Amino acid sequence: MAKTLGAIVAALGGDLRGSSDLVIERLAPLARAQAGELAFIAQARYAKQLQQTQAGALIVAPALQDAAAARAPCIVCDDPYLYFARLTQWWRREHEPLPAPRLDPQASIDPSAQLEPEVDVGPFAVIGPAVRIGRGARIGAHAVIGALAQIGAHTVLHPRVSIGTRCVVGARCVLHPGVVIGGDGFGFAPQQGRWVKIEQLGAVRIGDEVEIGANSCIDRGALDDTVIEDGVKLDNLVQIGHNVRVGAHSAMAGCVGVAGSADIGAHCSIGGGAVVLGHLSLADGVHISAASVVTRSITKPGHYTGLFPIDDNASWEKNAASLKQLNRLRERLKALERALEPDLSKTPEA
Amino acid sequence: MAKTLGAIVAALGGDLRGSSDLVIERLAPLARAQAGELAFIAQARYAKQLQQTQAGALIVAPALQDAAAARAPCIVCDDPYLYFARLTQWWRREHEPLPAPRLDPQASIDPSAQLEPEVDVGPFAVIGPAVRIGRGARIGAHAVIGALAQIGAHTVLHPRVSIGTRCVVGARCVLHPGVVIGGDGFGFAPQQGRWVKIEQLGAVRIGDEVEIGANSCIDRGALDDTVIEDGVKLDNLVQIGHNVRVGAHSAMAGCVGVAGSADIGAHCSIGGGAVVLGHLSLADGVHISAASVVTRSITKPGHYTGLFPIDDNASWEKNAASLKQLNRLRERLKALERALEPDLSKTPEA
Amino acid sequence: MAKTLGAIVAALGGDLRGSSDLVIERLAPLARAQAGELAFIAQARYAKQLQQTQAGALIVAPALQDAAAARAPCIVCDDPYLYFARLTQWWRREHEPLPAPRLDPQASIDPSAQLEPEVDVGPFAVIGPAVRIGRGARIGAHAVIGALAQIGAHTVLHPRVSIGTRCVVGARCVLHPGVVIGGDGFGFAPQQGRWVKIEQLGAVRIGDEVEIGANSCIDRGALDDTVIEDGVKLDNLVQIGHNVRVGAHSAMAGCVGVAGSADIGAHCSIGGGAVVLGHLSLADGVHISAASVVTRSITKPGHYTGLFPIDDNASWEKNAASLKQLNRLRERLKALERALEPDLSKTPEA
Repeated sequence: MAKTLGAIVAALGGDLRGSSDLVIERLAPLARAQAGELAFIAQARYAKQLQQTQAGALIVAPALQDAAAARAPCIVCDDPYLYFARLTQWWRREHEPLPAPRLDPQASIDPSAQLEPEVDVGPFAVIGPAVRIGRGARIGAHAVIGALAQIGAHTVLHPRVSIGTRCVVGARCVLHPGVVIGGDGFGFAPQQGRWVKIEQLGAVRIGDEVEIGANSCIDRGALDDTVIEDGVKLDNLVQIGHNVRVGAHSAMAGCVGVAGSADIGAHCSIGGGAVVLGHLSLADGVHISAASVVTRSITKPGHYTGLFPIDDNASWEKNAASLKQLNRLRERLKALERALEPDLSKTPEA
Repeated sequence: MAKTLGAIVAALGGDLRGSSDLVIERLAPLARAQAGELAFIAQARYAKQLQQTQAGALIVAPALQDAAAARAPCIVCDDPYLYFARLTQWWRREHEPLPAPRLDPQASIDPSAQLEPEVDVGPFAVIGPAVRIGRGARIGAHAVIGALAQIGAHTVLHPRVSIGTRCVVGARCVLHPGVVIGGDGFGFAPQQGRWVKIEQLGAVRIGDEVEIGANSCIDRGALDDTVIEDGVKLDNLVQIGHNVRVGAHSAMAGCVGVAGSADIGAHCSIGGGAVVLGHLSLADGVHISAASVVTRSITKPGHYTGLFPIDDNASWEKNAASLKQLNRLRERLKALERALEPDLSKTPEA
Repeated sequence: MAKTLGAIVAALGGDLRGSSDLVIERLAPLARAQAGELAFIAQARYAKQLQQTQAGALIVAPALQDAAAARAPCIVCDDPYLYFARLTQWWRREHEPLPAPRLDPQASIDPSAQLEPEVDVGPFAVIGPAVRIGRGARIGAHAVIGALAQIGAHTVLHPRVSIGTRCVVGARCVLHPGVVIGGDGFGFAPQQGRWVKIEQLGAVRIGDEVEIGANSCIDRGALDDTVIEDGVKLDNLVQIGHNVRVGAHSAMAGCVGVAGSADIGAHCSIGGGAVVLGHLSLADGVHISAASVVTRSITKPGHYTGLFPIDDNASWEKNAASLKQLNRLRERLKALERALEPDLSKTPEA
């Protein structure tokens, strides 16, 4: 696995400062890169690390090019982080090219399924009746696609992905192992202390260029569909309840839970382990910190947080005990303020 | 997919006000229902929405029947939400009838397994030695059932469900894709800084009419069994530790974690993302809010909560910083109160 | 299933007090053990339960041996809990011996895969090109092992485990159903409001004697590998982000999430539902309480906590509302203190 700097620039652009014949054996993080390895400097504030890096070559923005070129050959470009992202894609295509598509003879493909050309189906995949799969899609081993579902062109289902009946996945999506699309939403009507199931008659509709992490779940809607718009990125072990809408290009880190009928705007981000309660709305451009709980609609873009700060356990115990008295403390403070009103009126601080 | 109002009432009861020939093409939520669609009004407080709905027909309680009938044909019944639940079940049976049961030739069924009549087994399912499966059960594609396990009549295992050795699932249960029943409980004895595995010799016993959401896990017990009683409903990505008991008809929303040996009563509800610590008890009828952490036994029915309220990040930072001083604030307040005792004794507020 | 006390002591050591012919039919917890059942007493503080136990035999430490022997035959050993752990292992081997290893004819094994002797491969397992599997490893039904991955000797992959391309699992590991090793880390570069995928070119390296619970996920690194060191124990539904290191013999309970590039020391423990943010370090010997959020590096061993204490909902509402005023309360208290400074200087408490 190796490429010259010249080959990289020929494929991806950028201005090369230094020898185009330099051989790059690996992409590496700046702090640990060695000779033969190519690293990037995302921001000018990492300029100090430039002094210590052992990297064989660097990707840098124009502002750093002279300092960088003094240390190693450079690719100069406007957005080194974005360049690096594209480079990882090219590097993978060059070094781990996908095998030619084939329909594994051990897959179970219903005769009524319609597969466009160049679809790859792995061993033991199960493709149900009237499924439609777009050109160049790759269906991993043990994937299960229910009746009438649709998979868009060039979408990749990794092994063990499950797509429920009538669900739709767009083009150029990536679904990681264990993802479940279209399990039943959690809906029951109470009857004398028991629960009566509400069959979930909707489905899930996923747009284009959506990525969903391992073992994440997106439930089918009760009547209408659950909707994941274009460009959404979900990490692992994320739970999306029924009839949720996730707006375009929003991202959620691992272990996020979104309850039913929440409506999340576009370009939002939700940190790991956060919970969004049901039947509420987040405006476009809302950013929720990790482990925070959204208990009300948020109508203004911005950054929102709610988590108990970690402390050594003994300090936490004292403060947590006091927390249960907080409202009472507030009342006691108010009583003191009233008692002191004449005094306070005399002090300049008041 | 369409049914007349008359056919619906003939199947499910209720009093029809309006034409029995009206054709219903879809069930729809009240706010978005159109002509040809049937919606329900669960409670009188939604009466205002009645004025705006475009629904072709309505399911209402007797108190709303006159107002509703003025807008559209109605089915009048005592509990519209329950009626709606039953209607979804009937609608699904009518429009997506299950295919006739068959044993897929690509399933791996041990010759010693005992399958009652009308069992359906999907492709690539693996049914181990001495497994017993009740009449009419449906075992999805890629389900794996370990040796000696039992599956009750009419239970549905969706694709990719895993049932461990000796585990028992009752009748009329629904287990969604990726569910793991009977993985090992998390038990290790410490030995000089290392962990020595405690083999988990118990199993899991699940009652009748239990539903378990996608990718949820229920661990086998260490010595005794983990027990899920009748009618329990668990959402997706729920974790139940070893030797937990979940009482009948309790419900847990997505991403709940219950640690080992917790004993949860009947008719409890636990909100999404909540955590229940181990070796504690919840009485019957305890309701835990989403994202709350149960750190002690709860002996009285009621509603319990513990979560940090979300705020804009700047406000949260200030309050969270003050929180670490809370016990100290309490002491300072007490000192002030002592200093002011004479003054306070003179004020009417004190 | 039964063994005499004599056979147990012959296999596992300890001093027997009482008849070696006593037949033990089952291991049981102390509180519920009956005649014919063997229980252990881990610590002297359980001595009171000794008076009530109906156990047929007991495993006890030397300090309790006389009191215990007065009730039932005993095995006396230095560490009863450790003895019990070993006993569970022996009990399982004796009563549920593994079937002889075989390569299931319905598995899909690439001709270039190298399997050492005594490897067991279940039905519908998929073993990719150039995979290497060590002696005595057991690959469950529906496991999927990607190209070039390695599985160490005597490791057990339960059904439906997924191991990504180039990932390495050590010897004597146990991976429970639904585990995903080597899904893509969550990495995207922003470009004008959209996300551009950073291909994850690293892999996952897992040491020896690691156990990973059902449906847990460990992501592959972006450039370097994600590393799980020897003896680590992870419970179910745990998420480990890309480029995390988990130090040797650390343990995490269910539903823990660790974000990318976190560096967790050896001999740490992390309680259920806790979240560790990315790019931070935990020293060796750090213990995090359940449901706590680690937002900063922790450099000293110890016990750390951060969770909102649960309360009845009405009390919580009052205190949570006051919490949003906490910084303001602090300022009001300070104003009072200033106003009172002369008074306070006169009181002995100040």
